[in-house]
Amino acid sequence: MSDKEASIKPWGGRFSEPTDQFVERFTASVSFDQRLYHHDINGSLAHAAMLEKVGVLTAAELKDIQSGLEEIRAEILEGSFEWSVSLEDVHMNIEARLTDKIGITGKKLHTGRSRNDQVATDIRLYVRDELVLINKELSRLQQGLVELATREASTIMPGFTHLQTAQPVTFGHHMLAWNEMLERDYSRFQDCSVRLNQCPLGAAALAGTTYPIDRHYSAELLGFDRPTENSLDSVSDRDFAIELASAASLLMTHLSRFSEELVLWTSAQFKFIELPDRFCTGSSIMPQKKNPDVPELIRGKVGRVNGHLISLLTLMKSQPLAYNKDNQEDKEPVFDIIDTVKDCLKAYADMIPAITVNEDVTREAAMRGFSTATDLADYLVRKGLPFRDAHEVVGKSVAYGIAENKDLSEMTLDELRTFSSDISADVFDVLTLEGSVNARNHIGGTAPEQVLSAAKRAENRINNRS
Amino acid sequence: MSDKEASIKPWGGRFSEPTDQFVERFTASVSFDQRLYHHDINGSLAHAAMLEKVGVLTAAELKDIQSGLEEIRAEILEGSFEWSVSLEDVHMNIEARLTDKIGITGKKLHTGRSRNDQVATDIRLYVRDELVLINKELSRLQQGLVELATREASTIMPGFTHLQTAQPVTFGHHMLAWNEMLERDYSRFQDCSVRLNQCPLGAAALAGTTYPIDRHYSAELLGFDRPTENSLDSVSDRDFAIELASAASLLMTHLSRFSEELVLWTSAQFKFIELPDRFCTGSSIMPQKKNPDVPELIRGKVGRVNGHLISLLTLMKSQPLAYNKDNQEDKEPVFDIIDTVKDCLKAYADMIPAITVNEDVTREAAMRGFSTATDLADYLVRKGLPFRDAHEVVGKSVAYGIAENKDLSEMTLDELRTFSSDISADVFDVLTLEGSVNARNHIGGTAPEQVLSAAKRAENRINNRS
Amino acid sequence: MSDKEASIKPWGGRFSEPTDQFVERFTASVSFDQRLYHHDINGSLAHAAMLEKVGVLTAAELKDIQSGLEEIRAEILEGSFEWSVSLEDVHMNIEARLTDKIGITGKKLHTGRSRNDQVATDIRLYVRDELVLINKELSRLQQGLVELATREASTIMPGFTHLQTAQPVTFGHHMLAWNEMLERDYSRFQDCSVRLNQCPLGAAALAGTTYPIDRHYSAELLGFDRPTENSLDSVSDRDFAIELASAASLLMTHLSRFSEELVLWTSAQFKFIELPDRFCTGSSIMPQKKNPDVPELIRGKVGRVNGHLISLLTLMKSQPLAYNKDNQEDKEPVFDIIDTVKDCLKAYADMIPAITVNEDVTREAAMRGFSTATDLADYLVRKGLPFRDAHEVVGKSVAYGIAENKDLSEMTLDELRTFSSDISADVFDVLTLEGSVNARNHIGGTAPEQVLSAAKRAENRINNRS
Amino acid sequence: MSDKEASIKPWGGRFSEPTDQFVERFTASVSFDQRLYHHDINGSLAHAAMLEKVGVLTAAELKDIQSGLEEIRAEILEGSFEWSVSLEDVHMNIEARLTDKIGITGKKLHTGRSRNDQVATDIRLYVRDELVLINKELSRLQQGLVELATREASTIMPGFTHLQTAQPVTFGHHMLAWNEMLERDYSRFQDCSVRLNQCPLGAAALAGTTYPIDRHYSAELLGFDRPTENSLDSVSDRDFAIELASAASLLMTHLSRFSEELVLWTSAQFKFIELPDRFCTGSSIMPQKKNPDVPELIRGKVGRVNGHLISLLTLMKSQPLAYNKDNQEDKEPVFDIIDTVKDCLKAYADMIPAITVNEDVTREAAMRGFSTATDLADYLVRKGLPFRDAHEVVGKSVAYGIAENKDLSEMTLDELRTFSSDISADVFDVLTLEGSVNARNHIGGTAPEQVLSAAKRAENRINNRS
Repeated sequence: MSDKEASIKPWGGRFSEPTDQFVERFTASVSFDQRLYHHDINGSLAHAAMLEKVGVLTAAELKDIQSGLEEIRAEILEGSFEWSVSLEDVHMNIEARLTDKIGITGKKLHTGRSRNDQVATDIRLYVRDELVLINKELSRLQQGLVELATREASTIMPGFTHLQTAQPVTFGHHMLAWNEMLERDYSRFQDCSVRLNQCPLGAAALAGTTYPIDRHYSAELLGFDRPTENSLDSVSDRDFAIELASAASLLMTHLSRFSEELVLWTSAQFKFIELPDRFCTGSSIMPQKKNPDVPELIRGKVGRVNGHLISLLTLMKSQPLAYNKDNQEDKEPVFDIIDTVKDCLKAYADMIPAITVNEDVTREAAMRGFSTATDLADYLVRKGLPFRDAHEVVGKSVAYGIAENKDLSEMTLDELRTFSSDISADVFDVLTLEGSVNARNHIGGTAPEQVLSAAKRAENRINNRS
Repeated sequence: MSDKEASIKPWGGRFSEPTDQFVERFTASVSFDQRLYHHDINGSLAHAAMLEKVGVLTAAELKDIQSGLEEIRAEILEGSFEWSVSLEDVHMNIEARLTDKIGITGKKLHTGRSRNDQVATDIRLYVRDELVLINKELSRLQQGLVELATREASTIMPGFTHLQTAQPVTFGHHMLAWNEMLERDYSRFQDCSVRLNQCPLGAAALAGTTYPIDRHYSAELLGFDRPTENSLDSVSDRDFAIELASAASLLMTHLSRFSEELVLWTSAQFKFIELPDRFCTGSSIMPQKKNPDVPELIRGKVGRVNGHLISLLTLMKSQPLAYNKDNQEDKEPVFDIIDTVKDCLKAYADMIPAITVNEDVTREAAMRGFSTATDLADYLVRKGLPFRDAHEVVGKSVAYGIAENKDLSEMTLDELRTFSSDISADVFDVLTLEGSVNARNHIGGTAPEQVLSAAKRAENRINNRS
Repeated sequence: MSDKEASIKPWGGRFSEPTDQFVERFTASVSFDQRLYHHDINGSLAHAAMLEKVGVLTAAELKDIQSGLEEIRAEILEGSFEWSVSLEDVHMNIEARLTDKIGITGKKLHTGRSRNDQVATDIRLYVRDELVLINKELSRLQQGLVELATREASTIMPGFTHLQTAQPVTFGHHMLAWNEMLERDYSRFQDCSVRLNQCPLGAAALAGTTYPIDRHYSAELLGFDRPTENSLDSVSDRDFAIELASAASLLMTHLSRFSEELVLWTSAQFKFIELPDRFCTGSSIMPQKKNPDVPELIRGKVGRVNGHLISLLTLMKSQPLAYNKDNQEDKEPVFDIIDTVKDCLKAYADMIPAITVNEDVTREAAMRGFSTATDLADYLVRKGLPFRDAHEVVGKSVAYGIAENKDLSEMTLDELRTFSSDISADVFDVLTLEGSVNARNHIGGTAPEQVLSAAKRAENRINNRS
Repeated sequence: MSDKEASIKPWGGRFSEPTDQFVERFTASVSFDQRLYHHDINGSLAHAAMLEKVGVLTAAELKDIQSGLEEIRAEILEGSFEWSVSLEDVHMNIEARLTDKIGITGKKLHTGRSRNDQVATDIRLYVRDELVLINKELSRLQQGLVELATREASTIMPGFTHLQTAQPVTFGHHMLAWNEMLERDYSRFQDCSVRLNQCPLGAAALAGTTYPIDRHYSAELLGFDRPTENSLDSVSDRDFAIELASAASLLMTHLSRFSEELVLWTSAQFKFIELPDRFCTGSSIMPQKKNPDVPELIRGKVGRVNGHLISLLTLMKSQPLAYNKDNQEDKEPVFDIIDTVKDCLKAYADMIPAITVNEDVTREAAMRGFSTATDLADYLVRKGLPFRDAHEVVGKSVAYGIAENKDLSEMTLDELRTFSSDISADVFDVLTLEGSVNARNHIGGTAPEQVLSAAKRAENRINNRS
């Protein structure tokens, strides 16, 4: 550390030896927290305006600070700003530059605040803005899903439980299941956004400040709902980061599940869908390969976000009040979560509407596996058999079908009647795939009619978002 | 498995060999899911009432089912019900008993539903009820905190950052920091409670049912806001379990932090507080010990809940739709989270109001460590020095104080004036502990006046909860 | 708590009020740590023998203790022992019963030890024994795999990357991949077992004891390699629990991957294998279903074990030395990890040899998807084309095959020669599935010859285990 | 993507549209995997040498490849190499540059391998080298601890359980507890290093290769113990990454615990030690602060590593064989774990020997809190009282001491004898701090004599490392 740099440290005076050079690099955060510059400047502008309002700064001083900070913002944007590790973090880098520019007034900006409430404000502003972007991309993905569901409302595919063919469903119905999960993700991000929207400015180091500050005013300038209620909590709270991580882990869990299906469905064994080439890559050794890289990679990225969640929870475990240096470790996980979520959502929002369904294949797959066996059982119940007896009749006819390699709909009436004399010609209405899906005609059911109205409701919900 | 039991299996017909005995035990869930019996019966009652409304059951059949189920509930409550592992789970155990009791009508209860939507309904009902209990206990803890904060609104203690003495704060202010965290926990549990309150009944196995069900009616009977929107999602969704786990992890993180402070504060080195004997235990070998077992154990239990969160996230990673057997693993974590959270909250709610503060010790500790140094700096700024110059003056006077073993308030005016001629007799007003805390008199600040009004606001919020 | 019970507490004297009843239940561990009784008694027997050796106990006293403890062991085994929550844990329950039985001598057993070193010893003994059982079951599973691999050494199936058909492999080769993972799991459990095998007895509460103990003697009696080196570490170390959890998480990760394949392979789309009915269950609503419950459940159980790992890591984070009550939370995860791992290994060891491969299906699947495309490229390189040019030729012939719906081996020589004149009649040797797998004839390669010798080596490794 | 870049893709031929630009960036790994360049080049050199040995390459071709790769290594080292995102990863970037340099021969390098076995080899080589560096730094830290322990072998401090004063221990003894944990960490890293040291080269894409490769030769050239046993496992195994993460999590857990103590001990309440200024930082607002930033930050970084462990475990959960794109997500966690561990070990290795113990303070603290109460109990047992009765006598004398504010050693003989007439003048030998610690004179005990010999043994173990 050069003497010049040593003298820049905001706390150098009490110390008898300079910081170890390795330690300086090890403890500095500027390499990653410079990303907060935009919100740091906005936070400083609001703080300065408040200081002027309460008479701590003059109107002229405020003006100098405002123009100085905007110049710095421009320098950073254009890439000419020089970041210094000796200045530790984004806050000191910007403040030092401000003092270079406007002299002693720059030093007054820090009146009535501390880096503790400053960084708490910056990161809330940052997360709040990013949540808007995340939910915008999430809405775009949902729109794509609704569109695809509408397009494929009548396309029949096998519904699976235990990855065994269970009952026929419509492709559109299946897509709307994903939309429901995303709907909950959206509302979780919204909840997080509301809960974090309180302004820590004025908490200062931990106890508040002796200056005659107006916390409501700075909160209002920054678009916060109100100032935080307790200064000790304000500088040590990282709930919003953990809540963001939790909501993101759930979203990524959903995308990992969806990706699993896309990987299965593009396999030679399933062949249910085609992904456009531009979302796939090939092999350096096997010329025939077309790999679903994008879904695979997203499936893997859930690990990354779950990891960050644990990282943040572990970080906060057992920390006494108020601010501790440990908390510096909150930023990288938050940044990486936001980047990952935005990228994965963008990839999905681009990819989903471009999916092609191999309708013949999905239909054929639904035909196999006795997917209408439940319908036969229900038919028998309607004819008067108790459910459990009906279940047994169907079990036997399935066993016969396996032996004879015939689906239920492929058996003759006589064959079917060997299992129960209650079966008559109208049975074939319920054994067709269309009969099966159309019969599930209640809210939440797989009937095409229900899919279309569910898609409409979903669309309205998305469109009604502020 | 005896023949009798084999014949009980609801799906035995298609199979050529009985389940392996170890496998039967390994895959059965009745040892832990019997806890759901109350909500399973309630769910069945609503389903039966709906079936009667739409004409699938007669009024007489419904009455039989109702009285049968209530008898079973009574048997379970009084401990005379015999649970069978061969019957796999709580649902089949109750249904088999019902058929024992009321004959063939018992078999009709399962019309138009599947165990998939049945269990999804049961666990939502269960979690919903438990969330009410959790938030009731959480409110009781918050009331205790507010009471303690009010009682100790003027008690002075050192505020810490980096566990170094930073500035004097009031004990009440410190307690309200914990209340803020719990306030957010409360609202997260509420959000979870609202989001899960949709009724999966009618989703059946995965695609809905062919019976003319009225999903709105059964949803209403069970107090749900509405039926779920998509049957595939309904039987595979475990978001509510993960969201519960996330909210619980954050709460437990807060309690781990609070516990860390209680452990520190009861150490011989701090001695800030006394815990009542009834929350402590002794040592089998060291007769003098009084160990803060309850806070320690709760500090440890955050690991348990974080673990369950990861368990649930890992469980759901990459699962394709719809229901898979993996999902059976959701219950034990959910049950243990709920038990843990309720126990820890009860312990805290009982313990907090019984804390005794060693006011002399906390005051003396605040005197040490130059905790009013910031106040001196602020004083100098008000006298006209730029903040950074003031900081340097104070740095030097602290260095002098360390050398001379004198707190700032113990120095004479002459001594102080050697560092800056701007200092005059009024400096002692700001160097006292009372002067320091009273000066932080803005919303969120540590001044006793602010603590009392913050406590009042907190109390109102708690009292206004439905 | 009754007075009688209060008087039993080993540390009651210093306290002015009895433990709160809820707190007593909350802090007690006897409900789960009673499982350690066998090892607790063994540890006590060794400790007593050591005390006699160094003259702290007389031979007669030792004899009384020995017969008393063996009687207690018998009582517990036969279920007549009465566990008391007021006595907190397994240690105090047994010690109190011993004193009931043999009077004052029972009280002398605790001389020179503390519950801190006692429990540390018990749990190491317990984990050491369980690791033997785990590795025995693991070996049995490996034997089953090697047997299956040998049986199916020449069975052809598609090898997948990205779940896309890549190249033909042999089923036996695929099975041996799983064996390699289990081989590493085995050695990790062994390493854990060696590292934990040091005896904490004598560390007492935290600092050692003033009695003239012989730590080498008690270590030897219990089969430990040596006494631990540091008493503070001995009572606070939970590394072995975390290392066990880490090794178990990896094993369960492997089983989750294997289970994923079994689930895929039993689907209607793959149909590569059949699982015996006894490892599957059916559906209460869909009569045709045969669900691979056992693999699904095991796939889910990896979450449980990962969760315990995080639980233990979180538990230990930031704990200062030496023993803290938090550590009581180590037992339940350890117990559940051991139960889960043993059950899952048993299920797998039973299930694997009973798998039936649908050889026709796997062969047909390998035919599809141009799995010998790499072989054609290698063929062309041998004919003199640079690898990248060969890759391109094959790419074009695959494109043609897709358009014409013909595998490479189904094209005529003339067709093939339109892509490269370097192709001659010998090409069909490399385009057959057998030609392809036989050609990968080096250590680690998929050729049946290599599979058989790899299986032999694997068998030898397993048989040579102590 | 420009046409030129499109043509560079090693798998472009089969595809009808170029990769989406965002997708290209999203799926590329070169931004982080370029760190592997050194080991990628070493792996290629060994592969090329093997190809020449078996006759696939000529001696001249090998020479061209060798000089080409060394030129590339130099370019990368000096910073002149141009990395291209279009070339996806480190492997293709280097191979493309090699072909630029040496023409068609460059294309031959990839004969008989695939990126799947190539990257598996690179990362094992990389981790192996880094483990050497980690264990070197770990040894340096252990040396510092042993040195400090030797220096402070007789320094008395309170030993804590439950953070309550328990018994006096020596500072050196306490330091050696940390050394024991690090000893286990060292051996876990060693085990990991041995287990990963098998060479995947030759596994090719997943099934081995048709070229006449010599896997033993390339394994030997790269210092591996042997080639891997199974090609499918070779390309999909990430055990070593998870095992590294597990070992690192435990090490970081230890450092988090040690850091917790350093933070406590530098607080105004403890004041047990001083950290040199160069490992601390100050406050921008509170001039008197000296914050233990380095321990705090390291305490926080355990979260980061635990997070990566979960990230990797989640990543691998349920992945079917063999290579899937998900696996690309393994690198960033591995890199960050290695960086974090090395930095934290360096900081600790530098810091520990520079710690100053405030011997007066630690001694005084040991005096308080009746830390020799156990010694009094042991004394009474030696005088003939049963342990439990002795415990009670001491309990009463402690209660008296608390009331009178006197430590046991400060009571008169008469006072002491009011609790038991068995007490005589020799009691004061055991009530002194020195008497207490000296009496714990067995292996693992806290007596200075034991500390010195334990330190000696520890030093020998460290020095005997290869």
